[in-house]
Amino acid sequence: MGEALESKHAQTQLQAINKALASGMFVHVRKMLNSLPPGDIALLLESSPARTRSELWQLLDADFYGDVIEELSEDVRNGIIRQMVPEKVVDALEDMDTDDLAETLSSLPESVSQDVLMSMDEQDRQRAEQALSYGEDTAGFIMNTDTITLRPDVSVDVILRYLRLKGELPEDTDTFYVVSRTDRLIGKVPVTRLLTAVPDITVDELMDEEPEAIPVHMPETDVAKLFERYDWISAPVVDEHHHLVGRITIDDVVDIIREDAEHSMMSMAGLDDEEDTFAPVMQSTQRRSVWLAVNLVTALMAAAVSDLFEATLSQMAVLAILNTIVPSMGGVAGNQTLTLVIRGMALGHVSPSNSRWLVSKELAIGALNGIIWALLIASVIALWKQDFALGGVIAFAMMVNMVAAGLAGATLPIIMKKMKIDPALAGSVILTTITDVVGIFAFLGTATLLLL
Amino acid sequence: MGEALESKHAQTQLQAINKALASGMFVHVRKMLNSLPPGDIALLLESSPARTRSELWQLLDADFYGDVIEELSEDVRNGIIRQMVPEKVVDALEDMDTDDLAETLSSLPESVSQDVLMSMDEQDRQRAEQALSYGEDTAGFIMNTDTITLRPDVSVDVILRYLRLKGELPEDTDTFYVVSRTDRLIGKVPVTRLLTAVPDITVDELMDEEPEAIPVHMPETDVAKLFERYDWISAPVVDEHHHLVGRITIDDVVDIIREDAEHSMMSMAGLDDEEDTFAPVMQSTQRRSVWLAVNLVTALMAAAVSDLFEATLSQMAVLAILNTIVPSMGGVAGNQTLTLVIRGMALGHVSPSNSRWLVSKELAIGALNGIIWALLIASVIALWKQDFALGGVIAFAMMVNMVAAGLAGATLPIIMKKMKIDPALAGSVILTTITDVVGIFAFLGTATLLLL
Repeated sequence: MGEALESKHAQTQLQAINKALASGMFVHVRKMLNSLPPGDIALLLESSPARTRSELWQLLDADFYGDVIEELSEDVRNGIIRQMVPEKVVDALEDMDTDDLAETLSSLPESVSQDVLMSMDEQDRQRAEQALSYGEDTAGFIMNTDTITLRPDVSVDVILRYLRLKGELPEDTDTFYVVSRTDRLIGKVPVTRLLTAVPDITVDELMDEEPEAIPVHMPETDVAKLFERYDWISAPVVDEHHHLVGRITIDDVVDIIREDAEHSMMSMAGLDDEEDTFAPVMQSTQRRSVWLAVNLVTALMAAAVSDLFEATLSQMAVLAILNTIVPSMGGVAGNQTLTLVIRGMALGHVSPSNSRWLVSKELAIGALNGIIWALLIASVIALWKQDFALGGVIAFAMMVNMVAAGLAGATLPIIMKKMKIDPALAGSVILTTITDVVGIFAFLGTATLLLL
Repeated sequence: MGEALESKHAQTQLQAINKALASGMFVHVRKMLNSLPPGDIALLLESSPARTRSELWQLLDADFYGDVIEELSEDVRNGIIRQMVPEKVVDALEDMDTDDLAETLSSLPESVSQDVLMSMDEQDRQRAEQALSYGEDTAGFIMNTDTITLRPDVSVDVILRYLRLKGELPEDTDTFYVVSRTDRLIGKVPVTRLLTAVPDITVDELMDEEPEAIPVHMPETDVAKLFERYDWISAPVVDEHHHLVGRITIDDVVDIIREDAEHSMMSMAGLDDEEDTFAPVMQSTQRRSVWLAVNLVTALMAAAVSDLFEATLSQMAVLAILNTIVPSMGGVAGNQTLTLVIRGMALGHVSPSNSRWLVSKELAIGALNGIIWALLIASVIALWKQDFALGGVIAFAMMVNMVAAGLAGATLPIIMKKMKIDPALAGSVILTTITDVVGIFAFLGTATLLLL
């Protein structure tokens, strides 16, 4: 992002299509739209308000439905499919790869997905039901089943003759897998190696033995981490008996990597990962209200803490004026720590073996921050309000709250993860509650003791 | 993240190595460490405090230096290279691919990278200097130059014979590029197609003509968007004369996709993208202080606004107690909008042609939110403080601030982008300042007018 330009080409097309649509040139829009690649059509739909979106969909050639649906985010896809008659949905999903089909089906309302499954042919239905049975967000769910397998005792020229007979290979095939008589995965041969091999060599002389394989029940985020860590382009998937059941290619993993990375940002702002920028007003308002409700309770709790010091506040209005500074600084410092630890966890850097070290580090930063900002705020307040005692009180409160912020920011996500709560989702609210309450108590409490 | 398990295997190894290190079993650690793949060694280093990190590095076999350095994040890499003698750095970087080499060199201190360049052989130095000349974060910088090119009039069996002679192909080769006599890119042939083709067919009958190509000066974030949108595994890179100059493979792009997605989250919390979870205390404190300083100024501004109403506050302490509720709700609502718009921009969904629609939508959500939360807070305050007029005042302030939050959250990133300021970096501070100031003004101002 930042200064980087958008892809100019796509932006220009988008504007041209919007303009043509606004002036009712539907024939023109249809022509432009149907000449775009599926990824661009998906981008155009995702960048349009609901009404434009359904107008565009109606102008789209039905042959492209499947390819475009594959590329859409869940929210947008569901909105579009809900408007289609079931037969059209079946047609659109017919030629999809297993992985895309499973994902699309699982995001549809039960009744629609049952209709679609019923009207599919036997073999496709079995493949889809198998993928669905592994459970959403697992390797089995995102894998493709169109692997090409070789036997260890076959020679290269036999394989080449077979491949020439077969004609086309599945999309993005970069590796052939070698399986035993019982379908156990025993090796792999990169496609490029077949090209450079002498014709009479056999597969077992050529293959890499015991390749790394992904268990079919592994969560997709772990699959994504493995692809990132080992720079894989594709990987075989095996069941509990080490039988080859499919393969995962990196283009399926790229979306997971982006979603995982975005998840924390969206959650920390109290948004649904899949929230569509152009969703209808009512739907957006409803989705965002959960977070606002939680925040209202938190804000009222902070107010209740201030309420304990009503007598102090009514005697010294200056305390009311300065009451927000210490909580605010604690909130920012705590959120820095929280965000860093959450990201560290997502990257797999934070583990039980180093979390104690990490907490001490963040405590040290909190203490150092406390000293720096306490001195600074004390000077500002002493100058502004001409009151050194008040400066001392706010400095003390700042010290306490910065240490609390560091401690809470580092320990909260670690504790929440142990309790199987997503730290990105609730961490920031709990943290702010802590820094608000500690900040107000420290400031108004010390002021009550020392200044009255 | 969330409930997903970490990769158990790596975690267990990590703990085993840490334990062995703590008990001084260096021979054992060395053995375990050097049996790991480079990606795992990099993860282990990134998950360790500075001291453990340099102990581990000393135990690592020098043969692995290059492969591990490639996988490290910038901050950690620089820390390690700074401790190495230049000759060792040269040895480590010797066998690197152009793209990794360019990236590593550009992140080193000038003096070290000059030393490294000087001690490289002529051909490698030219390649590295060429990549560096395209400028960091461009396609030319992240591309590899080891493409295999074909001429259109050559037959498949000639190519196969050539490839067998040549032996190994460059890593992750999935496509051969077809160039004219003048090196212009005119087509591409997927590796798999060569396998299934009949031997006497020529390249021009086999190739896809005019393949999509990436201009060498395209920013890397745009390159990443293209890979995501079109599900590419690799793509050719061309110069301004459409001459083939290299290729980009998806494993180089995956890191960019993650970094781009993380950038907003880290920036919004006031953190450097590359901030190392295990950086030394002083370095972390210094980096985070910028954001805390900005927040202190903001908090003081909000206090200054409250200060205008000192007379009101000293007459009604209850206003001081409730003063934080309206700004806090506005801040959360505004941040939801801001986050959504920033993500929409990063995904290329928000453009001039739909931004007016988006702003109206967020204004409508703001107004709706205003009504909902105004009614709720009015009821709570009327019950808690037994004061209906006070409930009315806070309800009015809530309405005003929620609309301001929606407006600011939607327009700020759009305006900032036009001004070429990164909205993720400064947007959240400016937004909070607006919701704080508007919230306090609306609440204390209305209270002064109506309640005194």
